[in-house]
Amino acid sequence: MKLTALGTGGGVPSLYRGLPAFALERNGEVFLFDCGEGTQFRIMRSHIKPGRLEKIFISHFHGDHVLGLTGLLMTLSQFSREKPLELYAPPGMKEFMDNMKKHLNFRLDYELIIHEVTGGEIYKSKEYSIYAMPLSHIIFNLGYKIEEAERPGRFYPEKAIELGIKPGPLFKKLQDGHPVTLPNGNIVYPGQVMGPPRKGRKVVYATDTNPMSEMVDFAKEADLLMHDGMFSGDDDVMAIERGHSSVKDAARIAKEANVKKLLLIHISPRYSDGEMLLAKAKEIFPNTIIAKDYMTLEIPYED
Amino acid sequence: MKLTALGTGGGVPSLYRGLPAFALERNGEVFLFDCGEGTQFRIMRSHIKPGRLEKIFISHFHGDHVLGLTGLLMTLSQFSREKPLELYAPPGMKEFMDNMKKHLNFRLDYELIIHEVTGGEIYKSKEYSIYAMPLSHIIFNLGYKIEEAERPGRFYPEKAIELGIKPGPLFKKLQDGHPVTLPNGNIVYPGQVMGPPRKGRKVVYATDTNPMSEMVDFAKEADLLMHDGMFSGDDDVMAIERGHSSVKDAARIAKEANVKKLLLIHISPRYSDGEMLLAKAKEIFPNTIIAKDYMTLEIPYED
Repeated sequence: MKLTALGTGGGVPSLYRGLPAFALERNGEVFLFDCGEGTQFRIMRSHIKPGRLEKIFISHFHGDHVLGLTGLLMTLSQFSREKPLELYAPPGMKEFMDNMKKHLNFRLDYELIIHEVTGGEIYKSKEYSIYAMPLSHIIFNLGYKIEEAERPGRFYPEKAIELGIKPGPLFKKLQDGHPVTLPNGNIVYPGQVMGPPRKGRKVVYATDTNPMSEMVDFAKEADLLMHDGMFSGDDDVMAIERGHSSVKDAARIAKEANVKKLLLIHISPRYSDGEMLLAKAKEIFPNTIIAKDYMTLEIPYED
Repeated sequence: MKLTALGTGGGVPSLYRGLPAFALERNGEVFLFDCGEGTQFRIMRSHIKPGRLEKIFISHFHGDHVLGLTGLLMTLSQFSREKPLELYAPPGMKEFMDNMKKHLNFRLDYELIIHEVTGGEIYKSKEYSIYAMPLSHIIFNLGYKIEEAERPGRFYPEKAIELGIKPGPLFKKLQDGHPVTLPNGNIVYPGQVMGPPRKGRKVVYATDTNPMSEMVDFAKEADLLMHDGMFSGDDDVMAIERGHSSVKDAARIAKEANVKKLLLIHISPRYSDGEMLLAKAKEIFPNTIIAKDYMTLEIPYED
């Protein structure tokens, strides 16, 4: 998986930070988390292929997270998109889209499948599941998690050969989890030639939220936690009142959840010095990164 | 007056042309024509001071002309704007804004005065008037014109002195158009010491329109005509069907209206070669410019 930070600011844009939008590439598909004004331009300026967009996740109905959505959807239509696009958002998205279509006199030439979600498992395939969790903001707001299924363990061809299997279709049969019967009647089981199942990756997107104890569970051992870090932590009252977290809050959650990496996002335009914010977080959780527009992050498998 | 082209494309954005937005500065005030997605970023990157925004004019309800409006208005509020802002647009704007506020949970801390207009004189002060005219597009669409009032003629101090006026408050009285009675009983009239009234400037914004004979009158002798030049003129059917003009159409109108300068706008992303478009227009109307993002144009007085 590879994350591209398209907009790392929040509230109002600055010259240095665009409005929230994060693209996650996985296996040729692109997931987009939030879609602030200007996201379509930022996609154009990045390596992300808009045609690969598969799913869009909107956290909540504040302008800085939503105002790029309509333009992006319209442009995809103008670029002759045909395949359906899945849109996950809090309740209200269907009415919002209906109103935008009515006011702005457009239709989309592909199917936009809107899922109004409020939490829990919102998608499941063989390869991965997606979960949403209500956050603690001044309006209803969702965090999202993508969690890959376990992959089969590593295959050891030398062990298979030792047990009498010839390289070829039978290797594949074992890798797919099926036992193989040899001409002499012996049965070789996948477990004899493969290592234990390997963990999939887990990525969590949680912005515009007060620090929440529930996040520790939600983000448990995530490979990457993107977390609201709008304030420095020197004025906690302001962070709490506005439904945000400080970089210290984010670091504490990352530490408790034992994540591999913390990415601070939704950085307030009031901080020109990202290094100061980063230093505060690193005191608590060393493996912290502060997001910068157009930054990319590889999210490798553990093994 | 000074025009800044903030977004010179149309339909979909490209790497080279943003979506429609043109800022006109006059006497410390800024007028904005259309507000495509990203306009607030483009204002930030230009010399335009957002606090000076006085009036916004929206041509029509297509996304590429409107989708930056909500974000801009919200940001102005976050930047503590207090003075009212005037918004002129076709009918539907009040409902659109109400819906945006409802869906996106915001309010503005300044007064937004929405004028839903359909044509005619839409504003008049001592200094200038503003007119709207319905254009010929696939939905209801307005062109706008700002027309300055005549200014008093040039004042000739040497003539006043010759007639016995002493430099000082009486100069001002004459300049303001009042006669002055001298100690000897002679009366000096303004016309004796001033030239004829001088023409104000006229700027017309007309985009997303088929070529219209009415435009010749509307733009008559304008100092600057910004006109839809979305197509090259090699495929007139497409331009007509989509409610647009070719650069040749724009040039013909500029010529017939005897404007001083034509600025081609709403350039389609299909043309990477602006010079080719410009050459076609210049064959018909030599004083043509093709708009480029962030370009500025001074609009001087005739004299």
